Parts: sequence; structure tokens; C-alpha cells
Amino acid sequence: MSAQMSLVENFLRQQADQNVQDLIEFLRIPSISADSRHQSDVLHAAEFVRKQLADSGCTAELIQTNGHPLVFAEWTKQPGRPTVLVYGHYDVQPPDPLEQWITPPFEPTIRDGKIYARGATDDKGQMLTHVKSVAAWLKAVGELPINVKLLIEGEEEVGSDNLDLFIEQNRERCACDVAVISDTAQYGPDMPAITYGLRGIMACEITLRGPRQDLHSGVFGGSIVNPVNALARLIACLQDDQGRIQIPGFYDAVIPLTDEERRTFAALPFNAADDLASIGTTAAFGEAGFTTLERRWARPTCDVNGIFGGYLGEGPKTIIPASATAKLSFRLVPDQQADVLLDRLEKFLREQCPPGIQLNFKKWHGCEAVLCDLNSPYMDAARSAIKQGFGKQPVMIREGGSIPVVATFQRLLGVDTLLLGWGQNTDQLHSPNEHFSLNDYHRGILASAWLWQKLECIPPA
Amino acid sequence: MSAQMSLVENFLRQQADQNVQDLIEFLRIPSISADSRHQSDVLHAAEFVRKQLADSGCTAELIQTNGHPLVFAEWTKQPGRPTVLVYGHYDVQPPDPLEQWITPPFEPTIRDGKIYARGATDDKGQMLTHVKSVAAWLKAVGELPINVKLLIEGEEEVGSDNLDLFIEQNRERCACDVAVISDTAQYGPDMPAITYGLRGIMACEITLRGPRQDLHSGVFGGSIVNPVNALARLIACLQDDQGRIQIPGFYDAVIPLTDEERRTFAALPFNAADDLASIGTTAAFGEAGFTTLERRWARPTCDVNGIFGGYLGEGPKTIIPASATAKLSFRLVPDQQADVLLDRLEKFLREQCPPGIQLNFKKWHGCEAVLCDLNSPYMDAARSAIKQGFGKQPVMIREGGSIPVVATFQRLLGVDTLLLGWGQNTDQLHSPNEHFSLNDYHRGILASAWLWQKLECIPPA
Repeated sequence: MSAQMSLVENFLRQQADQNVQDLIEFLRIPSISADSRHQSDVLHAAEFVRKQLADSGCTAELIQTNGHPLVFAEWTKQPGRPTVLVYGHYDVQPPDPLEQWITPPFEPTIRDGKIYARGATDDKGQMLTHVKSVAAWLKAVGELPINVKLLIEGEEEVGSDNLDLFIEQNRERCACDVAVISDTAQYGPDMPAITYGLRGIMACEITLRGPRQDLHSGVFGGSIVNPVNALARLIACLQDDQGRIQIPGFYDAVIPLTDEERRTFAALPFNAADDLASIGTTAAFGEAGFTTLERRWARPTCDVNGIFGGYLGEGPKTIIPASATAKLSFRLVPDQQADVLLDRLEKFLREQCPPGIQLNFKKWHGCEAVLCDLNSPYMDAARSAIKQGFGKQPVMIREGGSIPVVATFQRLLGVDTLLLGWGQNTDQLHSPNEHFSLNDYHRGILASAWLWQKLECIPPA
Repeated sequence: MSAQMSLVENFLRQQADQNVQDLIEFLRIPSISADSRHQSDVLHAAEFVRKQLADSGCTAELIQTNGHPLVFAEWTKQPGRPTVLVYGHYDVQPPDPLEQWITPPFEPTIRDGKIYARGATDDKGQMLTHVKSVAAWLKAVGELPINVKLLIEGEEEVGSDNLDLFIEQNRERCACDVAVISDTAQYGPDMPAITYGLRGIMACEITLRGPRQDLHSGVFGGSIVNPVNALARLIACLQDDQGRIQIPGFYDAVIPLTDEERRTFAALPFNAADDLASIGTTAAFGEAGFTTLERRWARPTCDVNGIFGGYLGEGPKTIIPASATAKLSFRLVPDQQADVLLDRLEKFLREQCPPGIQLNFKKWHGCEAVLCDLNSPYMDAARSAIKQGFGKQPVMIREGGSIPVVATFQRLLGVDTLLLGWGQNTDQLHSPNEHFSLNDYHRGILASAWLWQKLECIPPA
């Protein structure tokens, strides 16, 4: 161990209780970004983060946006060394349903080594690990071994409306060699993980319009296209009976899983029966030739998220509905492009749409998939830091969801992101009784402190 | 012309104004069966009908049911001659939206030879023609040439819940050689029609359940069946791309159109462009080898009447919905059997339903199709009577909708029904500004009076 890390580790041991106290104070703030009645609480949480960083020796400020403020902090006194951009968020989900919380969501309580509060894992607890590791270096050593910037937003739970704009207008200020986010999870208890791939997404809403108004199905049935029947046929023709998507060229840009990735996924503990039981269904389903983890992490999807048309009340009503609507989303994988495929989807649907039906196609915002270089020196540094912090080699995993900011960092700053999950998927994020293991909190701080150390020797790009 | 019909015609000429006054009085009564606030009005309308019939010389009474009363009247003093059962209804649809009526729905107003009021054509005006023709015979001649029974209900617009039960428990009382209903329409202006066929119907609601609750489409997408996607596939596999239904054996019992029927339909004036414009669509669609009228009148259908599942609000929401529901109805044609085909439908759907999805199949009440004998003496009598009343040979048509009481008469009483439409499809039934041509009202009364005369010579079955 380096002499500096020895100082940092000592400091963290002494500081352990204070670090928990600070987390408790942070979690007491009901910074619910979705609820305008909590606007001053959201501001209070931003100021808490700014002050933590300023007190540790960073320059730190609140940046106003059209919504909630960003916290931007930096310590960049190591020219010639790499620069890291830490992203996180200080806002939280609403705590409803309140009656299901064992202890109140904004009165943090420790039980069995876990701290229970809204935001414990998502993302106050996980994000604070990096704030605390920066503080430990600056207080114990007097400097960081690299350059660190922190961009902590208050609108993650409401769509990050102002984040991309800030990054786009402040590329120089945000410039870095690699980004770091702790807003994912370990693969399981005591199985720290680095998430190196995320799926992207494209989404749209399609409405089919037939007759001017609902028609009597006896008088007209059989002689014109029923928009709901037509919508069902359109949806059905999007996939074959194993879920493989039929849009021409849809798979052209898909980067296949490597043999190494497939071996890695196959080696992860995964109990299919437990998995199905946990979601309350009885059968897996999906593209032939792929495992469940591969289908979730590395293959594209087509899901109807909502559908409606015609009579929705009780009992029967014998009409031909005037229109029908479906909300569709497709998870994408590297290197599929959302805008290109949305256009192909629209073209495909229009080609399949029968005469007499008017198709309205509404595009939603998309997001590209992410695949980080497994062999970069940054990834090596992260693996090594986690080994130090958790005493275990991390597993390399991908995730089926999308984290748009990772794609933004890749697009606007040209950098990969190290997704270092300290939490667990069972931490009840977005649900009552959200919690975070204090052991993982401390190990996360330590791993983060090691990360700055491990990145020291990498020459900046 | 027979001497008796001469007396009847003279009487009707003298009585013309009074017959309109009585219709106006009848239409003033807001007998909205769906609205419990109008219960006394509904009773008032029943009593109006009873009194009209009693005053003309029939025995007439109100029969209590679990809902609104039935009017049952008869004049059966011609043993050895045929017996006719006239069916009609004295209840009306709610008049909403009120603001779209040019004159109030229960203040009957005559404009351009038409009487405007809720119930004018459906069915007070049309039904009253038979009450008035019976009265004309009894008052002008002193007797009817045949036996007449009238069964006039007050729940037609709310599902006729108590009608079948009454007929089933009073088969002797309702016994007849033929039934008569005027609750359909002419084919067009000055084109009186006899409807000799009706489609039947079967209906169900299917719900597909997948995971216990809505799931994150990123985390789980691609690895389990999405119930909405599955529902779309189920619906799609019910028909080929021309709407032909794929349930095994579905067409086995279908009675093909005769060449004579096809020639008759083809000879009817039908402007495809006007037809499409009137319903606000741009293309016809349906089974290959059939015209639009054939598809509407004599071919079975499969229509989704309503569908819902997942997120129905604004914008996107990336979930795999826990369930999805569709309301389906199939129009049937002679001799398809609703109960047999509902079972086949359920079997077919269960066979197509993918693993991991639970299918709930809820059957609704069905109704058989009807095809009356085009060559029966009753049909000949009706054709001849209409020729006398309207001065034109009626066209023989079928209809795509279902009139359950006609199937009931066939099933419980073993008789055909003469569906004699005096109204027009453009009479705005169920809509604001419902109306009925007074000329057609008078001609309907006359045709009805002729019908009793024409039926005289037919030996009872």
C-alpha cells in the first residue's frame, strides 16, 4: 500500500462514525424533485452537497438551471494527471405509499447494519461515497493524486431536463478522461460489480384512425378495417413467435456478445426458478439461442407499454372503434442507433398499415446504448480499486436499463463511464423501506479512495 | 280491392289527422327506460298503448315484470284463421346530447313532412302503425280478418331482460303463425324493404396475465412474454389478412348466399364512395369474393370492441404491463351456433396462448342469426301488402345487426318474423333530431291493414 493510501485509510477509520452522521443528515432532507412543495428542501440538499465539497477543499458552487440547481465542484491541481468526472444526484423519488414504511422515509434509521430512508441507495448514499473519498484524500494527504470534478444534479428523478444542456454549453468545464457513477448495484450480496454496458431505448406512440366515429359493429362489421384489429396485426408483425424483431435491418448494427462475455455471464449465479418466482410468472421467453441474462443485457426488445382503443367500461359494447393507440418502446444495444431505427420502424409500420386506416406516429426521445471498453486502463483501475475496497474482484456485468447521462458523456465528452454499483437490486429503490448497507457505504468510500490512487499512473488521453 | 279494405281505407283517410295527433301525444311521453327518474313516464307510455288497443276493441292489459311492464293485447275471434303476433317497444333511448336538438326531444314538431321527437321512428312511430291498423279494421269493419296478438315491451333499449322469460312462461298465450315487427328500415327513400335475415352474435372478454405486477422494461425486457404483445398476437391470429376467421370449423355451418340473393343485393342501388364518405373512411375491406352488402349482411365477422393494458396516460412509461384485456364480438350468420363457436374460440385461443401467460376467458350472452323463408305464404302476403300500402314492390334485404327477439320467436314459438321497416336508416335513431316521415307513417298503417287482409286466406299451420 502507498504511504498516502495508508493515511487515507487511517483517516477513514477515524471518520467512519462522522461519515454515517453526515449521511443521516443528508437523508433527513426530503429533496423530492417531483413535488414543488419540496422546492426549498431540494435546494437545501444541493447546498448540503456543495458545503461538504467546499469544506473538503474543492471549489464548489450551485449552478442555477430552469429547474433545480446543479452542484459543480472541482479540485484540479494535478496538471498532467488524469481528470475524473463524478456524476450523481441529490434528489429522491416521492416516498409514497407512506403507510408501508416501517420507519418514516425522512427519519433515517439503522437496523441490522442497514440505513433505511428514501434516497439511502438511490442515490444519496452511493453518491456520497465519492464526496467522502475526495474529502479523505484532501484532509488526510492534503491533495488528490489526480484531478476530480463532481457534477451532482437535482433532477434525475424527473427526467434530467437541464443536464444535457449544461454539459453541452460547458464542455470544457466538464472535460475529463473518464466519468464515474455509483447509481447501479452489485450483482448480489458481497458481489461487487462493474456495469460496462447499458441498453439504449427508442419509444413511440402509434394511433390508428379508421371511421370518423365508433360504428355499430352489426351494421358495418366485416366491411371496413377495425382499427383495433389492425393495431393488433401491426404489433404482431413486429416480432416473430420468439420475439425476434422483423423490422428490416434492425439487427444490422448489433455488436454480438463475445465468447468471453457469454462465459462470464454463464458463470454468474442465476437461479431461473427463483427469478421467475420473484416476478410472479411461470415461464421464460425470448430469442432462441440466448440465456435470460443475455436477453436482458445484450439483446434488443420490443415491448408494448400501453394500449387502448374502443370501449373500456364494464360488459360488452358492440362497436367498431374509431381509433386505437399503442405505446411502444424498444430497448437497443450497441451500436444500434435510435433515430435511424425509429425511421425504419415508422416506414415498416406504414408499409403494413392497411388501406382505410390513417397511421399517426409520434416519436419520443431516444437514448443510445453504451458499451465501455472492458480493457481500458480506467476499467483496470476500477477493478483494482474495488478489489482493495471490497476485498473481492468485481464481476463484469451489463444492465438492461438505460442511463441516458452515460450516453451523453460518451457523445458530448467522448469518455467512457465507470459504473460502480455499491448498492443491491434488493435495496427497494423507488419503493417503501429503501435502504443501503452501511458496510457497503464504507467499502464504497474506500474503493473510491483507491480509485483515485489507481488512476494516478494512467497518462491522460 | 275487397269491400272490407275499402271501408278500412276510407276510415284511415278520415282518421289521418287523429292518427298523427295520437302519435304526437305518445311521443310527448319521455319513456326513457334507462333512467329511473322516468319510471312513471315509462308506465304512462305503457298505459297509453294499452288504452289505444283497449279502445279499439282488443282485450289489453299491462303485465308486471321485474322491470318495466309489458303490454299484451289480443283480438282472436277468427278461429281457423292465422294468428299474428306483433312485437314492438314503447320505451326510448335517452335524448342526450340535448343541446344538439333543433326542437326539444319530447316536444314533437313537424317540419317538411317529418315528425321530430325521440322515439319517432324507434319505435313508437313504427310500432303505432300496427295499433292503428288494428283499430281501423275493428272500427271500420267491426272485426279483423285474422287473429292478432300484440306484445309491446318497455325494456328494448335496456336489453329486454324480462321479455324472453315472459315468452318462455307464456308460450300458449304467445302462440302464433307468424310474428311482425316494424323496427327496421326501408332500404332508402321510397324503397320499402322486408328484412328476411339478421346476423347473430357471440361476445367475450379475454384477459392475459403475465408478471405479478408491471415490470421495468429495461431490467426484464426480452426475457418474459409481454401480455400486451401476446394479446396482439392472439387477436392477429384470429383472422387472415382479408379478415377471414381462422378458428377451425368456424365456417362449417355457414349457409352460403344463393345466386338469387346475390343478384338481388347486386341490383340494389349502392354507391361505394358515398357509403365510405358517410362513415368517414377511405377504403372498404373484407373477405375476398364478397361485396360490401354481402359482407355486412351475410358473412360472419370478428371485431375487437375495446382493448386496454398497461400505461394509458400521457407520454411514455417503460413497463412490461402485468395484464391486457380485449373485448371481442363476432357477428354470426345462419346456421352458426354461438355456444358451439364460443367454445371453439376459447380452445383456439388457449392453444395459441404462450407459456407464462394465464388466459381468462369470460363469455357474454350470445344470440343466433336468423334467416326467414323467402318463399313462405306469410312473406308473399307481406310483399303484397307493402305493394298496396306503398305502391311499390318491397326489396328483400338482410341486415348485419342482431334483433334477439326474432331468434327468440324462432326458438320458443317456432315462427318466422316479418321485419317490415317503415323508417329510414337516416332517421337519426339513437341520435339527436330523430324523426319519422309522416307519409311513411300513414303508408305503414295502410300496409299493415293490408297485411291482415292478405294473411286471411293462408291456412294456419
